Amino acid sequence: MTKYELFYWTGIQGRGEFVRLVLEDAGLEYRDVARESRDGDERIERALSRELAPYAFAVPVLRADELVIPQTVAITKFLGERHGLAPADERGQLAAHAVALTIADLVVEVHDTHHPISVEQTYEKQRDAAAHRARAFRKTRLPKFLGYLEGMLGHDRTSDGRYLVGDAASYADLAAFQIVEGLHYAFPRAVAALHHEIPKLLALRDRIAERPRLARYLASPRRLPFNESGIFRHYPELDD
Amino acid sequence: MTKYELFYWTGIQGRGEFVRLVLEDAGLEYRDVARESRDGDERIERALSRELAPYAFAVPVLRADELVIPQTVAITKFLGERHGLAPADERGQLAAHAVALTIADLVVEVHDTHHPISVEQTYEKQRDAAAHRARAFRKTRLPKFLGYLEGMLGHDRTSDGRYLVGDAASYADLAAFQIVEGLHYAFPRAVAALHHEIPKLLALRDRIAERPRLARYLASPRRLPFNESGIFRHYPELDD
Repeated sequence: MTKYELFYWTGIQGRGEFVRLVLEDAGLEYRDVARESRDGDERIERALSRELAPYAFAVPVLRADELVIPQTVAITKFLGERHGLAPADERGQLAAHAVALTIADLVVEVHDTHHPISVEQTYEKQRDAAAHRARAFRKTRLPKFLGYLEGMLGHDRTSDGRYLVGDAASYADLAAFQIVEGLHYAFPRAVAALHHEIPKLLALRDRIAERPRLARYLASPRRLPFNESGIFRHYPELDD
Repeated sequence: MTKYELFYWTGIQGRGEFVRLVLEDAGLEYRDVARESRDGDERIERALSRELAPYAFAVPVLRADELVIPQTVAITKFLGERHGLAPADERGQLAAHAVALTIADLVVEVHDTHHPISVEQTYEKQRDAAAHRARAFRKTRLPKFLGYLEGMLGHDRTSDGRYLVGDAASYADLAAFQIVEGLHYAFPRAVAALHHEIPKLLALRDRIAERPRLARYLASPRRLPFNESGIFRHYPELDD
């Protein structure tokens, strides 16, 4: 059996959560390295400069026995295809990959609503730019991304309408669940105003949340709450 | 033989160029749909709302016979693995995927140096924020990304030092070539100041540029010059 080790920061869901959802839904055993270490985030800093170098620009990184796999989408695709959370055919695998990459692009844009200028500075030092960026995001980008996901549900001839690609859940659906949850946390007003346009996507969110292993995970202390150190931050002034 | 059709905007290299480099280096025949159409960019708008919907959030999109493949990294990975521009083993394929995804992240950050607030507005309307974002990019992000690529060359035990992964060129090396070229165009001063730290990456750039099919492509009118409508834009005030 493969030994899985997830390298990611403590204290936030962040991009690591997309990996955790796949690990948990697939029922895989894994070490959550930093959370299980006394050193916490220092363990991650050390790993990036030592055993994960030069492969990883950043975390999350999954180590699967001797394989070092950086990049969220690469990790979830790898795990999904190995453990029954990806389509079996090439067409479906390409479609799931594209959906996951598009969600990853959306994650970057969500992050940049509170950090439009520099990741090195706090939100408070870039609030004015953040207000402008968040407004543009809410107005044009958020509806466009959510509309794309809604459009994939049921209009894709490979989908049965219950899942984004094909007729079973994939890592792309888990990523969609996470982004819908995160957006509700960060932009409750903006997302609520779009609810009537995304009924299938909201149903997908509920369908994923009810998967038995995932439901247990979501109710466990391993699922950290969203907070204002992660990617999805609730700053009311950015949702106004 | 597969019929390849590339859907991408006319007039700029943009993200489509990462796909073109793979198509050209592999010696594949392809239609560059918008450039070969009388309608140009309108052809792309129409495709996104019709034959590429709902699969594509944006272009580039590659159509390979009946397969519709969006997302730059998904396309280049697909072509690379089909046509001899990717490692043959799983470890190498994962590494090439991770490098290409990291370069795609860098492309987003380069884009956001001139568009930190909104893709819907011109650069001129977000110049102040752009100046701040570009400074942060030059100071911390640019050296970090370039250092990562340099570190992959020769330190990765799967690499012979001539290529990023393994002992032959892959789509990841073509992407690295493109990002190095683009960064030299957009930030000539900032990149020149880092030259002493990236000798292997500069050698890779030269090695890729000398590949016979690619050299022919780069000298052809099909290779558009960089310009201030694309991702890599030279605004001297952002490189100061």
